Amino acid sequence: MDFAAGSCRPGHHTELPQRCMRQVGRVLGKVARAEWYAFAALGILTAFLSFLMDLGVAKMLRAHQWLYTSLEGGGLLQFLCWTLYPASLCALSASFSHNICPSSAGSGVPEVRTMLAGVDMPHCLTLTNLFAKFLGLTCTLAAGSTVFLGKVGPFVHLSTMLGAHLRDLCVLVRGDNKGEANGEMLVVASAVGVASCFGAPISGVLFSVELMCSHFALSDYCPCFFSAACGALTFRLLAVWSGERETLQALFKTNFQDSLPFYPLEMLVFALLGLLCGALSFSYLFCHRWILRFTKTNRSLIQMLSREKGLYSAAVTFLLASLTFPQSAGQYMASKYTMKQLLSSMLDAQHWGSQGQNSSLELEHASWSEWAPSGSPFCFSLAFFLLMKLWMLVLACTLPVPAGYFMPVFIYGAAIGRLVGEGLVYVSPTRDHSGQELAPVNPGGYALAGAAAFSGAVTHTLSPALLALELTGQFTHAAPVLLATLLANALARSRQRLSFYDAISISKRLPHLPSLLKACPRLSSATLEKVLGPIGPVLESASGLMEVRQVINTSAQPEIPVVDSLDSQILLGSVQRSDLLKLLSPNQAHGVLSMFAADTLFVTQGGRLAGTVTRPEASGG
Amino acid sequence: MDFAAGSCRPGHHTELPQRCMRQVGRVLGKVARAEWYAFAALGILTAFLSFLMDLGVAKMLRAHQWLYTSLEGGGLLQFLCWTLYPASLCALSASFSHNICPSSAGSGVPEVRTMLAGVDMPHCLTLTNLFAKFLGLTCTLAAGSTVFLGKVGPFVHLSTMLGAHLRDLCVLVRGDNKGEANGEMLVVASAVGVASCFGAPISGVLFSVELMCSHFALSDYCPCFFSAACGALTFRLLAVWSGERETLQALFKTNFQDSLPFYPLEMLVFALLGLLCGALSFSYLFCHRWILRFTKTNRSLIQMLSREKGLYSAAVTFLLASLTFPQSAGQYMASKYTMKQLLSSMLDAQHWGSQGQNSSLELEHASWSEWAPSGSPFCFSLAFFLLMKLWMLVLACTLPVPAGYFMPVFIYGAAIGRLVGEGLVYVSPTRDHSGQELAPVNPGGYALAGAAAFSGAVTHTLSPALLALELTGQFTHAAPVLLATLLANALARSRQRLSFYDAISISKRLPHLPSLLKACPRLSSATLEKVLGPIGPVLESASGLMEVRQVINTSAQPEIPVVDSLDSQILLGSVQRSDLLKLLSPNQAHGVLSMFAADTLFVTQGGRLAGTVTRPEASGG
Repeated sequence: MDFAAGSCRPGHHTELPQRCMRQVGRVLGKVARAEWYAFAALGILTAFLSFLMDLGVAKMLRAHQWLYTSLEGGGLLQFLCWTLYPASLCALSASFSHNICPSSAGSGVPEVRTMLAGVDMPHCLTLTNLFAKFLGLTCTLAAGSTVFLGKVGPFVHLSTMLGAHLRDLCVLVRGDNKGEANGEMLVVASAVGVASCFGAPISGVLFSVELMCSHFALSDYCPCFFSAACGALTFRLLAVWSGERETLQALFKTNFQDSLPFYPLEMLVFALLGLLCGALSFSYLFCHRWILRFTKTNRSLIQMLSREKGLYSAAVTFLLASLTFPQSAGQYMASKYTMKQLLSSMLDAQHWGSQGQNSSLELEHASWSEWAPSGSPFCFSLAFFLLMKLWMLVLACTLPVPAGYFMPVFIYGAAIGRLVGEGLVYVSPTRDHSGQELAPVNPGGYALAGAAAFSGAVTHTLSPALLALELTGQFTHAAPVLLATLLANALARSRQRLSFYDAISISKRLPHLPSLLKACPRLSSATLEKVLGPIGPVLESASGLMEVRQVINTSAQPEIPVVDSLDSQILLGSVQRSDLLKLLSPNQAHGVLSMFAADTLFVTQGGRLAGTVTRPEASGG
Repeated sequence: MDFAAGSCRPGHHTELPQRCMRQVGRVLGKVARAEWYAFAALGILTAFLSFLMDLGVAKMLRAHQWLYTSLEGGGLLQFLCWTLYPASLCALSASFSHNICPSSAGSGVPEVRTMLAGVDMPHCLTLTNLFAKFLGLTCTLAAGSTVFLGKVGPFVHLSTMLGAHLRDLCVLVRGDNKGEANGEMLVVASAVGVASCFGAPISGVLFSVELMCSHFALSDYCPCFFSAACGALTFRLLAVWSGERETLQALFKTNFQDSLPFYPLEMLVFALLGLLCGALSFSYLFCHRWILRFTKTNRSLIQMLSREKGLYSAAVTFLLASLTFPQSAGQYMASKYTMKQLLSSMLDAQHWGSQGQNSSLELEHASWSEWAPSGSPFCFSLAFFLLMKLWMLVLACTLPVPAGYFMPVFIYGAAIGRLVGEGLVYVSPTRDHSGQELAPVNPGGYALAGAAAFSGAVTHTLSPALLALELTGQFTHAAPVLLATLLANALARSRQRLSFYDAISISKRLPHLPSLLKACPRLSSATLEKVLGPIGPVLESASGLMEVRQVINTSAQPEIPVVDSLDSQILLGSVQRSDLLKLLSPNQAHGVLSMFAADTLFVTQGGRLAGTVTRPEASGG
C-alpha cells in the first residue's frame, strides 16, 4: 500500500510534508493492509454518526417536552404542541426523503440483504442517500414515542453506504480495481450498524451472520469483530467524554439480582412466554402484511403516497399523536415516556406494585409512575398499551420516512413479557411451605425475555437474544432469554413462511432469492428449462480483436460466454474467466473441495474429461 | 417420522403400549422433525456426561486432598501421596487410552475440524472411543492442577461421537439412508461440547462457527443454538438440583463493580496487554512446536511413546508433581489450588495486597492466600508460576492421554493479565489532582482480558472473548476483553502462520486443507496439472447394466464419472449425480447464484452451451 503515489515533484517547500506523508503511509502499510484501516474508520465513523444523531434527537425531544410543560394549563395549546410538533417533523422527514432520494425511505435492511446476496444496487449506496437518510431519520426519531419508530435498520443501511465509500477510497489508494473486498465490506458494515447503534459488538456480528442468507464466509469473521469492536468502543467512549454517562456502561443497565436471578421452575414460564410471543407475532405479521397489500392496491392511497408523501405523513402522525395525547387516552399508554424510558421502565427488576404503596410521593418518583396515572392499575395500562400500539405501529410502518422497525417490536415484546411477569408476581407465593419468606420474582427478566422472543419471532432471527443481554450488560438471564427466543422462533417459522423483512422485500419487489423461494414454494418444482434465456452473442476461443469488439458492441451482458467453436458451441468459460486454466490452481481446488466437502473433482478441458483431483492429491499428503 | 414402524402384530397384551407408543410417535413427529429431538437429546446427554465427570473428578480431588491433609507431619509420606496419586492416575489414563482406543488420546479438536472439512474418520466416532475418552479424561482431570490439563477439547470430541450415534439412530427411525444431516450434526455437536462444558451456549455457537474453516452454513445456525441452549440449561439445572449451586449462576461468577468497571484511559493498558499476550503466545507456540517435532524425531522417545505409554505418563507426571510439591517449589506456584480455584483467585476484583494487610488471620481466609506463602510477595509467586508453567505445560502436552489444552492456556493468560493488573494497581494514583480519592483499579478485569487474549492468540480464534464473558456472567468488560483478544490475534496471526491446533493437525498428519495451505504456502502457486490423477473407469451415458456392473467391479472410486461417449469423453456428471438434469431446477440455480453472488449462469448440455440463467429470470421477477 502506498499512501502517496504521486510521480511529479512539486516545489521544494512542499517536499517535507509530502515525504512525511509517504513515510507514514509506508509504516501504516507495513502494519496492516489498507482494508483494516477502512474497517476501523468504518466503525469509528458510524459510531460518530450514531452519537451525533442521539445527541440531536435528545435535544429536540427535550425542546418538545419543555414547550409542552411550559404551556401547562392551556389545554388546546398543549394539544397543538403535542400533535403538530411530531406531525411537522414527520412531514419534513418524508419530504426530505422524497425530494432528495426516494430510496432512503424505510428500514434499509431488506435492501442490504439483497446487496449481500450479490445484487448490485448502486442507487442505494450514494452519498445523497446517506445525507437524506441521516437527516430524515433524525427527524423521525425526534418525533418521539408518538410515532414509535426506531433506529437500528436505517443505521445498518447508513453504515453500508459509509462502507461502500470507504471501499472505493481503498481501491483509489491501492490503485487497483479489484472488486474482491466488495461483499466483505458490506458484511462488515452490517455488523457495524448494530454495534455502533447500541454499543453491542457481539450481537452486531451475529446479526451480520444471520443477514447472510446461505453461507457466512469465515474470512469476514475477524473483520466483522474488529470493525464492530471499534464502533462499539467509540460509541461508548463518546458517551463518556460528552459527560452523558460516567463510565463505559451498557445502554439499558439493569439491576437484576446476581445471586438468585430466577428459580429453576420459572424456566417453564419463560418457555410459555416464548410460545406466547411466537403466537402474537402472527397477528402482528398478519396486520403488517395486510396493510402492505392495502397500500399497494387501494387507489386513493397509492395516489396519496406517490404525490403527497409529506401530507400523508403529517396526517397519520397527527392521528397517532392525538390518540397518545397525555390528557386523553395517552395517559393509559405512558405516552410521556420516550422510547428509552419505556424500555427502562419495563426492565425494572422491582415489582411495580411494590413501590408507591406507602405514599403517592414515592409513586411519583418511581421509574414507572407514568404507567399508573391517577392511581389506576398499571396492568390495565399495559394491556391497553399492547392493544393500541399493535395497530398504531402497523399504521406507522406505512409512513414513507426513513425509520427502523426493530426497536418498536422489541419494546412491544418487553411489554408482553412485563405483563406476564407482573401476573406471575401476583400469583406466586411469597412464602414457602415452611413459612420462610421467598425472594420475589423478577418481572424485569420476563420483559427482557419477551422483548428478545417477540422481536426474534417477527424478524425470524436469534440475534435479538444476545442483543438483549448486551443491552442490559447482564448475563444472568442468558438461558431463559435464549430459550424463549428459540421457542418463539420455532413457532413463528413453522407457521409463517415469511419474516417481517421478507414481506417488505416482496412488497418492494427486491430480487431476493431465498425469500422468494419461501414466498412461492412451487418455484422449486419448476424445471430450469422454463427460465432458460436465449444465448446471445458468444465468442469463439480463437476470436480476434474484431470479433471481440463486435460482440461488445452488440451485447450488454456483463459476462460473455466463450465457446470452442461457433459450430460445436461447447462452452469453455466466459470473458471474465478467460484465464480460467491459469487460475484453476490447487489453491482454488482446495477451496472447492472444502466448501462442498467433496472427495473428488472432475477437471474438464473443453467439456472433455481431462482428469480427476481427489482429496489426498489436492492436499499434497 | 414414525417411531413405531413395526409391521408384525404381537399378542393382544402388548397391543396397548404399542398403540400408545405409535400415538406418541405420531404426535412428536407432527411437532418437529426427528433431527430436532436428536439435537435436544445431544445437548442433554452431553451436559449429563459433563456433569457426571465434574462430580467424579471433584470427589477424586477431594479424596486426594483429604489424604494429603491427614498425612500432615510425615514429610516423605506427604510427598509420596502428592506425587504417586496423579502419576498413577495419568498412567491409568494412558493405558486406558492405549489399550482400548489409541485415537482417544489428545484433544480431539483437530480431528473434529478435519471431519467438519468433509473427511470421513469413522474410527474417531466409535463407541469404544467414547468410552475410552470419557474414562481417560476423568482420570486426567482427577490428577488435578499438577498436570494442568483441561476438559473442553475432549468434550467437543465426545459430543461429536454422541452426535454421530444419535444421527445413526435418526436414520434408523426415519428408515431412509440420507447422509445429508451428516455435517449438520457434527457442526451442532461441536457447539454443544463447549456449551455443556461451561454452561455457555453463545460462545459454543461462535466456537462452532470458527471451527468451520471456510463457510458456515446458515441452516446450521438454529440447530446449533437450540442444541447448545439445551446443553447449557441441562448443565446448570443439574448443578442446581444436585445442591452444588443454589441458582443458575455462571461458573466463575465475578463481583466486578457495575457502576465504574474501568476508566476510559485503561483501554490503552488493555490494548497493551493484548499485544503482550500475542507476543507471549509466540514463545508458547514455539516451545510446543519444538516439543512436537522432538517427540517425532528422538528415537528413544519414539520407542518409549510407542511401547510404554503408561510408564512415560507416570514418569512425566511424577516429575511435574515433585516440582509442584507444596513444601518445596510448589508453594510459589499456589499448587494446592485446583484449576477452578486458580482461575477464581485470579478473577478476584479486589487488589490482592489490599486484603490481609491488617492481620495474618485475614490473609489466610483470602481467596488468594496460597499466592503469598509465608508472607512472600505474591508478585514473585505469579512471575514464578508464569515461568515454570510455560515449560511444564508444554511437557504435559506430550502425555498420551485424553486431555484438553484450552483451559490451561486460559488460566495462563489470566495469570499474565493479573500480573499486569496488579502492576497497574501499584503504579496508579489513589487520588486525583484535586485530592479526591479515586476508585481502585480492578486487576480481575485484566486477568479476564489476559485469559481471553492469550487463549485466543494461541488458538487463533476470537470466541474465547465471549467465553470469558459468559464464564463470569458479567458484560462489564466486554469492550476491553474483545479489544485485547483482537489485538493479540492480529499479532499472533501476522507472525505465526499456524495455530496450536494446526500444529497438532500437521504433527498427526490429518488431511486438513486450509492448515496445510498455511503450512506450505508454495502449494498455492502449483498448477492443478501437477496433481491431476488418471481418469480411471468411466461410464457412457448409454451404458447398460453390464457396463455398470463391470465398472463397479473394476473401480473402487466413490464417484464414477459419466461421459457422453467413450470417444468424445465429454463429461456429463457422475453416478451419484446421474439425475443431474432432473435436479438442476431453479431451486438449485438459486442456491448457486446466491452462494457465488453471480449474475449469470451458463447451462450446458453435454458440454454444449444450452442457454443462460440470469438473476431476474431465476428469481422470477
